[in-house]
Amino acid sequence: MKNNKENNLYAVILAGGVGSRFWPLSRQLAPKQFLKVVSDKTLLEQTILRVNKLIPSKNICVITNQHYLFEIKKELEQFGIPDKNIFLEPLGKNTAPAIALAARYLFLKDHNSSMIVLPSDHIISKNKLFINAVKDASALADDGYLVTLGVVPQKAMTGYGYIKTLNKISPKSKGYLVDKFIEKPGLEKVKGFLKQRNYFWNSGIFIWKTSVILSEIKKYTPSLYSKIISVYPNKDITKIWQKITPISIDYAILEKSKLVSMIPARFAWSDVGSWQALKDILGNDKNDNVLKADSYDVDSKNILVWSKDRFVATLGLKDLIIVDTPDALLVCKQDYSEKVRKIVDFLKDKNREEYIYHKKVNRPWGSYIVLQYDFDFKVKLVEIDPKKRLSLQFHRKRAEHWVVVEGIARVTCGKMVKLVRSNESIYIPAGKVHRLENPSGNKPLKIVEVQTGKYLKEDDIIRLRDDYKRV
Amino acid sequence: MKNNKENNLYAVILAGGVGSRFWPLSRQLAPKQFLKVVSDKTLLEQTILRVNKLIPSKNICVITNQHYLFEIKKELEQFGIPDKNIFLEPLGKNTAPAIALAARYLFLKDHNSSMIVLPSDHIISKNKLFINAVKDASALADDGYLVTLGVVPQKAMTGYGYIKTLNKISPKSKGYLVDKFIEKPGLEKVKGFLKQRNYFWNSGIFIWKTSVILSEIKKYTPSLYSKIISVYPNKDITKIWQKITPISIDYAILEKSKLVSMIPARFAWSDVGSWQALKDILGNDKNDNVLKADSYDVDSKNILVWSKDRFVATLGLKDLIIVDTPDALLVCKQDYSEKVRKIVDFLKDKNREEYIYHKKVNRPWGSYIVLQYDFDFKVKLVEIDPKKRLSLQFHRKRAEHWVVVEGIARVTCGKMVKLVRSNESIYIPAGKVHRLENPSGNKPLKIVEVQTGKYLKEDDIIRLRDDYKRV
Repeated sequence: MKNNKENNLYAVILAGGVGSRFWPLSRQLAPKQFLKVVSDKTLLEQTILRVNKLIPSKNICVITNQHYLFEIKKELEQFGIPDKNIFLEPLGKNTAPAIALAARYLFLKDHNSSMIVLPSDHIISKNKLFINAVKDASALADDGYLVTLGVVPQKAMTGYGYIKTLNKISPKSKGYLVDKFIEKPGLEKVKGFLKQRNYFWNSGIFIWKTSVILSEIKKYTPSLYSKIISVYPNKDITKIWQKITPISIDYAILEKSKLVSMIPARFAWSDVGSWQALKDILGNDKNDNVLKADSYDVDSKNILVWSKDRFVATLGLKDLIIVDTPDALLVCKQDYSEKVRKIVDFLKDKNREEYIYHKKVNRPWGSYIVLQYDFDFKVKLVEIDPKKRLSLQFHRKRAEHWVVVEGIARVTCGKMVKLVRSNESIYIPAGKVHRLENPSGNKPLKIVEVQTGKYLKEDDIIRLRDDYKRV
Repeated sequence: MKNNKENNLYAVILAGGVGSRFWPLSRQLAPKQFLKVVSDKTLLEQTILRVNKLIPSKNICVITNQHYLFEIKKELEQFGIPDKNIFLEPLGKNTAPAIALAARYLFLKDHNSSMIVLPSDHIISKNKLFINAVKDASALADDGYLVTLGVVPQKAMTGYGYIKTLNKISPKSKGYLVDKFIEKPGLEKVKGFLKQRNYFWNSGIFIWKTSVILSEIKKYTPSLYSKIISVYPNKDITKIWQKITPISIDYAILEKSKLVSMIPARFAWSDVGSWQALKDILGNDKNDNVLKADSYDVDSKNILVWSKDRFVATLGLKDLIIVDTPDALLVCKQDYSEKVRKIVDFLKDKNREEYIYHKKVNRPWGSYIVLQYDFDFKVKLVEIDPKKRLSLQFHRKRAEHWVVVEGIARVTCGKMVKLVRSNESIYIPAGKVHRLENPSGNKPLKIVEVQTGKYLKEDDIIRLRDDYKRV
């Protein structure tokens, strides 16, 4: 096998987390990595774009779980990343097991492979500096080091982990030996760190040879190692995964291994760990406000307003975070933004749905929003992505009226197939086999669906054929 | 004519205002007097109930305007107050012209009549004390006084008007002579007032003989008087009203007349002039919070949360008002609650609809809710009351798809008239004359309406015939 960078450097993107401090924008089924918080790309898409400059699509892998599979597939498709590069964790077990699994898979594929591990939900700008840092780290990894990227700290952040470095590995090396990792220190300590210049933010980005990380995992967490090597080939991962103890890669390996080194990096980085952190990234106006909303303010200072659906009026506020979504509203003093998790815990505890779904539900073919749900009728706004179609299906108990409000639909209803254009409608009687399709290559299709019947739950659907194997 | 209290004491309720400081709960077409803020009755209904203990329904009059007519009729119906007791102001001209109009009407009806003037949007508890005060005031009015009810102040409120009294009219009288009216004084002054015990809150409740108030109007505002006497019988009130200068009864008469007296009253009273004022009335919890919402709080103090439709999470807040409605959200520091009007002014200025309607809009024939409003389509749920029908109308720019989801519709579309049943639909092209009717005597009719077109505002409606004289 040809041994050049392009072929044996892999990216492994961790995309299985929820990011519950971003509630109500993030939900269990709409996690932080899928949010478009700073551009029209999701954080995951931005992460892929970043590494794709250096690593070809076929070498980019993503670790996630079953719930996020269709959304991940949609995002990966546009980059030409094959489905086989998606690893599904049966259960979240923190970072070490996920990384070990990917390392083992890539090692079996190529004993000489290296991997760069990246969180999917961070923000990095100054991409050139990022690429350079990765290149330097990659060279160091080839020498047998476990390499971390340490970001030169810009201000006294208490919410981050820090890396304390020792000397350079050698006078000519770009890498430093690592003394220790410090998890979320107090403000006084952090201020001291900034003066000493040998403390860096732990970016959570790591580069190493798969052979090296696996041998360190074997050394420091042999129980995890033995479980991981039993996964390939073809073992029942679900059973194995159940027995694994959750543990982070930092705690399991990096804080113990003698092989750890660090490349300092000067790119702008944030883990966007809270609404407060996001506000710090977004551009303030002259009153330090960030108004990402249809809004009007009187005399407020240092507030973030985030709303897509509703007019928001703010008067005389200070240091607040306001996040408005169709079914839940958050109003939070900024220094409480780390505590948003408490709200999610409350909702879980009460068995409510506001922490699981949005009103808008994503599907592999697009999405729908329930506009009204009454006893004997339901109104949905359904959006079908270009070139996508729903399954060929029928409903036992409900009829459907579709009014096309944007784009053109190709509708199958019994033996008839016809185009239904904007401002036209069609009726699908109960029991009739039908299919809805967006034949356009670039325009979305939107329909208003009025369902009528005595039983209107989502489970009244019999799929006969489906592009997404849900039959 | 028999001259007893029952027959010649009238109530005149002022119900033409908007109460824009209660936005977003109040809207131009959903004013404060129609809100159910402290019970399941509207403030207007509570006002009627209060005077109805003393004054029979046939003697209760309401002054309002055309916009509120159908809602007022609905509310008055349950008390058996006849439609002829509703006075319509063509334009709001503050209180003096409205009161003069009612006085003139009642004077012509009965030269010996007395009237009690009441705002429709205040809150009063301890009704027995209210009735007693009115009785005392009524006796005093019979002696030729213009009697105000002065509420014994409970705390240093700067947002109220104050009445400074002199001595009692006579040792045995319950009434006091009035020295002067003071409009919204500063906090230091108010604190002084409370110590002196001869300052009272101006409740805006007045009692006088119609003959006396008219002669005082003639004396102090002859221009208004001459216009008012020309209204009856049968003159064009609209023309006359246009020429009237807006002026309050306080400023026009009470601050000038020598006949003013005051009955002190100890009932609990609030003009509910702002969200802050409402919060003061509602019962606080141990953290001084009022949570009228499906909500969860962490560590907030002294906040009001008002929401019917959405889960609200609050963290670490202080002294805030949060009011959430389907299309608009208010977050306001409490000492800014008088400035909510600025928001309404902004919305007016921008020609937006969030100050006029709620998402649910009441109509004489029923109501509608806007479920979705996009650039080129709008979805409404329309409910038509039994035996009611919309106007015969057309729209220049929008087409409409109607899906009947409950009941049976009689639909006129061009020359065609047909019944459209539940689970059937019909299409109304732009420009086509149409009408929607509920022929049932007891069942409501519900339709989902999907509007399409580039202009979807409510003003694109040309009415040809209408049961409610809106052509």
